Amino acid sequence: MNDNFNPELDLMLERIVDVPRELIWEAWTTPEKLMPWFCPLPWKTVECEIDLRVGGRFYTVMQSPEGQRFPNTGCYLELVKNERLTWTNALEPGFRPAKQPEASPGHECAEFLLTATILLEPHAKGTKYTAYVQHSDVENRIRHEKMGFEEGWGACLNQLVAIIKSSS
Amino acid sequence: MNDNFNPELDLMLERIVDVPRELIWEAWTTPEKLMPWFCPLPWKTVECEIDLRVGGRFYTVMQSPEGQRFPNTGCYLELVKNERLTWTNALEPGFRPAKQPEASPGHECAEFLLTATILLEPHAKGTKYTAYVQHSDVENRIRHEKMGFEEGWGACLNQLVAIIKSSS
Repeated sequence: MNDNFNPELDLMLERIVDVPRELIWEAWTTPEKLMPWFCPLPWKTVECEIDLRVGGRFYTVMQSPEGQRFPNTGCYLELVKNERLTWTNALEPGFRPAKQPEASPGHECAEFLLTATILLEPHAKGTKYTAYVQHSDVENRIRHEKMGFEEGWGACLNQLVAIIKSSS
Repeated sequence: MNDNFNPELDLMLERIVDVPRELIWEAWTTPEKLMPWFCPLPWKTVECEIDLRVGGRFYTVMQSPEGQRFPNTGCYLELVKNERLTWTNALEPGFRPAKQPEASPGHECAEFLLTATILLEPHAKGTKYTAYVQHSDVENRIRHEKMGFEEGWGACLNQLVAIIKSSS
């Protein structure tokens, strides 16, 4: 399943979570369910647009605690309901090659290209959740790792799980 | 069908050709059938590897008349048999973001990122063939246009059609 993962170039978060994968899928693919958990606090996701088809647009705007807004545009590559979701910022929606990212002080994780895959597998305790991010080279993997990939994605996943539990 | 085409940023070749689309599809997706026509003469395609699935590798090596070799690696994005084929060099196989292309003197068309789509539609005379190439910005579209996109892709299509006719 993690067929494209390369430990030299990529980063991965693997967790067993005690919520059903259908609800995690929903939280990843519905704007109003994504916005409450998609950023590690005190950052907020203040806008989200999702065109849920291969080649479709995945757009979010993150807001810093100081109120600065950082838009992110991605393109979906793989969508297997309740199982697998992949998008990239190396392509714009409709598969157009993206421009090289510019400097984005305060939001450095938008400064490099990445492809992210979320895998959801059934598990006795709920769901095996795997998120991995592919980078173009070792330098960007190291940069993303130092920026706190694991803490950041882990904190978001905790928020996601807490919200699912509190609303069920 | 040309839903992602933007005339400001992109280039398109549209032709009616009097060969069946199934044979054009085959010529695009089978290495030994692709190599004889894929470069405008006197260039040659001397290697080709195709992993025909979304996320799979599309690899060719072009050879200049002087014998210099230029490898190209792409990733398939859409594959609808006999209808629609899309690949990009902005991603490596498995959807990994590609590095920015480097200077490639003598093979300038490998110096920018592109996404190419081939559409095959049934037509009274055979097939309506549409090839369009998406670029990240106007500058790259102009560069590719001046490099001879239409002549090059047109010459290749003529070779492809001639080969199909001579072998049927």
